[in-house]
Amino acid sequence: MTKPILMDARALNDFVTRDFGQVAADFTVDAVTDQGIRLRLIVADRHLRPGGTVSGPTMFALADVAVYLAILSRIGPVALAVTTGCSIDFMRKPEAGRDLYCDVRLLKLGRVLAVADALIFSDGVEDPVARANMTYSIPPAPGR
Amino acid sequence: MTKPILMDARALNDFVTRDFGQVAADFTVDAVTDQGIRLRLIVADRHLRPGGTVSGPTMFALADVAVYLAILSRIGPVALAVTTGCSIDFMRKPEAGRDLYCDVRLLKLGRVLAVADALIFSDGVEDPVARANMTYSIPPAPGR
Amino acid sequence: MTKPILMDARALNDFVTRDFGQVAADFTVDAVTDQGIRLRLIVADRHLRPGGTVSGPTMFALADVAVYLAILSRIGPVALAVTTGCSIDFMRKPEAGRDLYCDVRLLKLGRVLAVADALIFSDGVEDPVARANMTYSIPPAPGR
Amino acid sequence: MTKPILMDARALNDFVTRDFGQVAADFTVDAVTDQGIRLRLIVADRHLRPGGTVSGPTMFALADVAVYLAILSRIGPVALAVTTGCSIDFMRKPEAGRDLYCDVRLLKLGRVLAVADALIFSDGVEDPVARANMTYSIPPAPGR
Repeated sequence: MTKPILMDARALNDFVTRDFGQVAADFTVDAVTDQGIRLRLIVADRHLRPGGTVSGPTMFALADVAVYLAILSRIGPVALAVTTGCSIDFMRKPEAGRDLYCDVRLLKLGRVLAVADALIFSDGVEDPVARANMTYSIPPAPGR
Repeated sequence: MTKPILMDARALNDFVTRDFGQVAADFTVDAVTDQGIRLRLIVADRHLRPGGTVSGPTMFALADVAVYLAILSRIGPVALAVTTGCSIDFMRKPEAGRDLYCDVRLLKLGRVLAVADALIFSDGVEDPVARANMTYSIPPAPGR
Repeated sequence: MTKPILMDARALNDFVTRDFGQVAADFTVDAVTDQGIRLRLIVADRHLRPGGTVSGPTMFALADVAVYLAILSRIGPVALAVTTGCSIDFMRKPEAGRDLYCDVRLLKLGRVLAVADALIFSDGVEDPVARANMTYSIPPAPGR
Repeated sequence: MTKPILMDARALNDFVTRDFGQVAADFTVDAVTDQGIRLRLIVADRHLRPGGTVSGPTMFALADVAVYLAILSRIGPVALAVTTGCSIDFMRKPEAGRDLYCDVRLLKLGRVLAVADALIFSDGVEDPVARANMTYSIPPAPGR
């Protein structure tokens, strides 16, 4: 699925800084890719479970934000997309002491519905720690 | 699925207070039920999105903790169950200014795998705001 | 979620006989319930895997048809609802030589989107063999 | 995830012909790939819904068989893997009159659990018609 890129990594990061309030410090867009984006989670103590691995809800949030920003990268900051569903598999324990990153592939970007999948990796490790697919509802915007 | 109850609401709440650290204040077990448990999220500012509704990752965490505690209510605090998968649908916006609660039904509690579903409600509102199903892996415990 | 019932079991069975062609003989609506419907799969050789248990795709089809008919029971035979997503867990092996039935709960029946969950049982056995949740898109109908 | 290939396309097709009985004629392995396999559904009338598009349960079966064979391509025909879960999104209507093919990526191939995702395409069309992820349980085999 190839759609023109309307927001690059810098534009997305500015958007996150401006609009994401307290969680803006958690995330940084590494790249806008042919198929979606790569989003990094800057791991901090508040993301960890006992044992030093990133918690499940934090990985869910990483995938959720990553898909949201991937959609905005193609439709611009105009719309208020809403998560309608997510299916996630936790496959391996994240490595302690490493950032996570999330690679998103946009699979469908329709007028009212978007579908994407995401793989989450511990930085520097080959096998993914989690996979997710997410569906978003895209409310009609004035003039679209 | 009916299994004897090994931990009641008080025992589960004590466990949460002791072992859940910083997030213990978020949750309270309202009841252990025939089919599972009811877990309450005591909504605070840190759970909210702009507009005053509870965020998706917070609802994911609520379902995740609720299923985890439902499993412990039947197998006791001995095992370290690990979430392996979750599928969640967000159906309605939670009402601002209300707690959420989550009703868990245990559907399978096998030797190595547990499956449950969960409905999340805004307290006092009839229709559910989200539904989830979760699978947990139960590592072998000494002597089980 | 309580919506008035527009089609009862007889009306749904007539609809299946008329519109479902070759698979009409597989299914019968046992009841329209407060929350949805109960649909029965009349198990035949073509549904079985080696060993005599019902195949996964057959259980998927049972849940899919059951949710579709549950939606029609509340909105009538006017619309052409389309499955957009399904998440299914296979929990136990179905018993050989028994019908399966599927209990549907409608969780959301919006203007454009429906969400339901379903439990599949071997007739006469307490624990469910599978659970599924399904989302349907409901195209706009003239006059609705 | 790179694992040595134990069964190539010819070995898998021989296995399907020998062990899949009545549905063997539906499927052919086009290729064993670096990440998994590509499986083709040879579309026939029995797979179609009114309107000439492939039915949902048929696409579920395609993804299910494709992941199963991808697992066997890496572990050999020794084990009896069992589907434990599937999450599938139907994104576009398949084109009438075209075969479907399914590209599988193995994401985890553990001792007892396998996870894979799959994209389904109408042959000759760029955008996928469906995506699925599946989990399989791999029973212990003698000598493994």
